[in-house]
Amino acid sequence: METKSSSVTLLHNALIVTMDSETRVFYNGAIVVEKDRIIALGQSHNIFNQFAPLAQNVFDLHGQILLPGFINTHVHTSQQLGRGIADDVDLMTWLHERIWPYESNMTEEDSYISTLLCGIELIHSGVTCFAEAGGQHVSEMARAVELLGLRACLVQSTMDSGQGLPPSWADRTTDDCIQSQKELYEKHHDTADGRIRIWLGIRQIMNATDRLLLETRDVAKELKTGIHMHVAEISYENQVVKDTRKVDYGTVSYLEKIDLLNGNLLAAHTVWVNDTEIGFLSRAGVKVSHCPASAMRMLGFAPIKEMLDAGICVSLGTDGAPSNNRMSIVDDMYLASLINKGREVYKLGTTDPTALPAETILKMATINGAKTVLWENEIGSLEIGKKADMIIINPFSWSMAPVHDCISSLVYSMRSENIVSVMCNGQWIMKDGKILNVNEGEVISMARKASSELLKRAGIRIPKRMNMI
Amino acid sequence: METKSSSVTLLHNALIVTMDSETRVFYNGAIVVEKDRIIALGQSHNIFNQFAPLAQNVFDLHGQILLPGFINTHVHTSQQLGRGIADDVDLMTWLHERIWPYESNMTEEDSYISTLLCGIELIHSGVTCFAEAGGQHVSEMARAVELLGLRACLVQSTMDSGQGLPPSWADRTTDDCIQSQKELYEKHHDTADGRIRIWLGIRQIMNATDRLLLETRDVAKELKTGIHMHVAEISYENQVVKDTRKVDYGTVSYLEKIDLLNGNLLAAHTVWVNDTEIGFLSRAGVKVSHCPASAMRMLGFAPIKEMLDAGICVSLGTDGAPSNNRMSIVDDMYLASLINKGREVYKLGTTDPTALPAETILKMATINGAKTVLWENEIGSLEIGKKADMIIINPFSWSMAPVHDCISSLVYSMRSENIVSVMCNGQWIMKDGKILNVNEGEVISMARKASSELLKRAGIRIPKRMNMI
Repeated sequence: METKSSSVTLLHNALIVTMDSETRVFYNGAIVVEKDRIIALGQSHNIFNQFAPLAQNVFDLHGQILLPGFINTHVHTSQQLGRGIADDVDLMTWLHERIWPYESNMTEEDSYISTLLCGIELIHSGVTCFAEAGGQHVSEMARAVELLGLRACLVQSTMDSGQGLPPSWADRTTDDCIQSQKELYEKHHDTADGRIRIWLGIRQIMNATDRLLLETRDVAKELKTGIHMHVAEISYENQVVKDTRKVDYGTVSYLEKIDLLNGNLLAAHTVWVNDTEIGFLSRAGVKVSHCPASAMRMLGFAPIKEMLDAGICVSLGTDGAPSNNRMSIVDDMYLASLINKGREVYKLGTTDPTALPAETILKMATINGAKTVLWENEIGSLEIGKKADMIIINPFSWSMAPVHDCISSLVYSMRSENIVSVMCNGQWIMKDGKILNVNEGEVISMARKASSELLKRAGIRIPKRMNMI
Repeated sequence: METKSSSVTLLHNALIVTMDSETRVFYNGAIVVEKDRIIALGQSHNIFNQFAPLAQNVFDLHGQILLPGFINTHVHTSQQLGRGIADDVDLMTWLHERIWPYESNMTEEDSYISTLLCGIELIHSGVTCFAEAGGQHVSEMARAVELLGLRACLVQSTMDSGQGLPPSWADRTTDDCIQSQKELYEKHHDTADGRIRIWLGIRQIMNATDRLLLETRDVAKELKTGIHMHVAEISYENQVVKDTRKVDYGTVSYLEKIDLLNGNLLAAHTVWVNDTEIGFLSRAGVKVSHCPASAMRMLGFAPIKEMLDAGICVSLGTDGAPSNNRMSIVDDMYLASLINKGREVYKLGTTDPTALPAETILKMATINGAKTVLWENEIGSLEIGKKADMIIINPFSWSMAPVHDCISSLVYSMRSENIVSVMCNGQWIMKDGKILNVNEGEVISMARKASSELLKRAGIRIPKRMNMI
C-alpha cells in the first residue's frame, strides 16, 4: 500500500474551466496539486482512481466550478484606507485635496494595514495575483503580501518632477528614484516562496523627466523585470505631452519615440490613444490594464474592442479604492462587458450586445492577466506543471441560479460572494469564505482606526451630503 | 406597569438615513414600528427611553445603517428562470430565438417559481417594493409576492399587434387585453394586506394598436391606477413610430399627441428621447425607470442627467435576468452613477465625476422609486406614519470598511451582501441573511428543474462557448 502524502491534494467532481490554449472545460473534472504545482488534471473518474490512494486531502466539490485565480493588473493597495475620501469630486480636488495629502501622510504601518485590508477584498473576489500600481512603502506591501499568501508584482510610486507635489515628494531626484527601486528589487524580488516580484514604476509621464523614463527602461531590461506606468489617462495629459515633448498626438507616441514601448511595459488605463498609437502598442507587445470603473468615473471610454482586435493583450484592473470603491475583479468583469457593449452606440448608433463576449472577458481576467504580469509560464490557466493558483465557485445560490450558460454566468451573474475558496501557490488562503492567514475582523478594526487618524493628520475633510443630526 | 405589546418593535443605536424631504440622517437613531407602520423616529436615547418599556421586540443595531427599502421600478420577475439564455447575442436573436419562445412556453407554475426566485434575489438586494415590467401569468406572480411578503405593482404583458409574435399571442384582441386586465384588477388589486396593486401594461408601442393605447389610458384613469410601458428603447422604434404614426421624432412625441403622457405613466428605459420630448415628459409628470445594465447591453445611454435637470422623477430598475443577469438594485446604483459620469465625456471631452452624486442615486432608489410607483404617501422614506419598509446594512465588512462618507459608501461600496435584514409592511422578510417566508434552497432546486424543462419545451439551445469535454 502506498503512503499518503500530506502535500498532495485532490479536488474532484468539479466543473473545471481551464482557460488553457484549447479552452478546455471539464464538465466533471478533477485536479491534483502537489506542493505548489498542478500535477494532474482531467476527467474526474480517471484522476480520482489514479490519485485518491496517494492524496491526503481529497475534496468532493459536488459540481462547483474551478477556475484559475483572477489576476488584477492594476490596484493601489495603499489606497484602501482612503475608500470614500474622494467620491463625486472633480479631478483636481481628487488629486490635490484628497489623494496626495492622503498618500504623502501615510506611515509605513498605514501602508501595511492598507495592503492587508485590500488583500482581504482581493481574496474574497478570487484574486490570487495582482500588479501593484504604485505606493510609497513597498517593503510594507511585501510584508502584507507575504502574510496574506498572495502573489504580486510590487512597484514604488515613482515621480521625479511635476507641479504641486507635496513637499515630502518634491525633492526626490532621478537618482533617488532609481536607487531606491534597485534596493527594493535586491531586497524583495523573488521572495515569499517566489510569490513576490519587484517591478519598476512610473506614476505618469507628467511626473517623470526624460532621464527617469530612459533609466527606468534600461534598468528594467538589466533586471529582466517589468515597468508599470499610468498611460494616457486624460486628454489633458496628451495635450501636455504634445506641447512639451513635441509629438503628434500623446503619451503613447512619445513612449514609442523613446523606445519605452516593449513587451515588459504594463500600460494602465490607456484611454486616450488613437489608431496609430494602438498600432504602436500592438507591434511592441505592450500589455494594457483596463480599469472600467475608474475609467467611467474619471477618465473616459478606452478603445478596448479596437485594442483587442489589434491583438493587444488587454487585462483587467480595479484601480484604487478612491477611484472605484469596489476592489472586485468580479464586478469589473461585469462592468467591462457592459461598458464596452454600450460604447459601440457612439460608432454604430446601437449598442453591440455581442462585443466583448463572456469568454473574452474571462480571458482578460485570467490568462491575459498572467501575460500582463509576465508570469504566463506559471499562472493564468489550470494546466499540468503550472502553479496551483485557483478558486472554487458555488453557482447554486440565489445570485447565479439557474445556470444555462456556465461561461457567461461566471461573467455576468457571479458575485464576489460566490467565490468560496481560494488557493495560491498550492496553499489555501480562503476556505469556505474564511480568510485563513490573517484575522479579518482585526484587520478591519485596525484599518478603521488607522484611516481615521491618517485623515486627521492629512487635514482631509469630507463635506457632509445630507442633514446629519 | 405598562403591558408590552407584541406588535411594537424598537430598533435603536442605528445610523438612520431617512430619505425624508429634509434629508435627515441620525448618527445614532432609533425607530419604532407598530404593526405595519412607523410610529416614532428620532435620537436613540429619547426614543429608547420612551418606547423600550412598551416594545416587545428591542433590537440594538450596534451602529449598523437603517435605510428605507429599495424600490425596483422595472423588473420582469417571470424572466428569472431565463437568466443566461440570451447573453452576448444580437437584439433580434435575443427577442425571436430566446425571449419570445421562453415567455410563450411558460406555464403558470413556471411563472410562480420564477417570481419566487426573483423575489429572493430582490430581497437579498434590499428591495421591499417592485414594479413588475410585464409577464404572462399575473395571478401566479401575485401568489408568489403574497408568500414572499414583498410589495408590488403587477402588470400583464400586453400586446395586441406586431410582427412575428408566437402563435399563442398573435390572436389576442384589444378587447381580450383590456378585459383580462380588468379581471386581474378586480381579483388582485389591494390584496395581500394592501401590498399588491394591479397596474395596466403596454409591452411597447410596436406591439400596440391605437385603440389599445387609448383604452389603456382611459381604463387606468377610471381605475385610478398606473400604466407601465417600455418607451423609446431603441432608435429603430422611434423610426417606426415616425414612419407609421406621423410624428416628428419618436414614441414620446406620439404619446404626447394622444395624451398618454400623464403622472400615472411609468416609462421604462426612455433612452432615445430628444430635448423636446424631455420637456413633454417633465411637464406631464411622467416617471422614468432607468435600467443602466440593460441599457448598456442592449439600448444605449439614456439622458438621465438631462432628465433629472428637467425635474423628471427618475428611479432605478434592474430589468429582467436575460437583459442584465444581476437583479440587484445595489449594483444598479453603482452602475447608474458610473455610466452617467462616463457618458459626459461625449459632451464635455472629459467624464464628469460630479454627475449623479451618491445622494441623487440614493434618492432614485428610494423616494423617487416610491413616486414612480405612485406610493410615496406610504413608502420611500422613513417617516412617522409611513409603512415600515426598511433594510439593515452592515457596513463593518471587507467590502465597505472603512466608511469615511456614509452616503457615498452606500452607493459605491455597498454590496447586496451587506444587507442583512429586510422588513416589509412591518414584517421581517429577511433576518440576518436568511429569507424567512420561503425555503431558499427548495426554490432554487425547483427553479433549476423548471427552467431546464422550459428551455427544452421552447426549443431554446444555447451554443457552447468553449471546448466542453
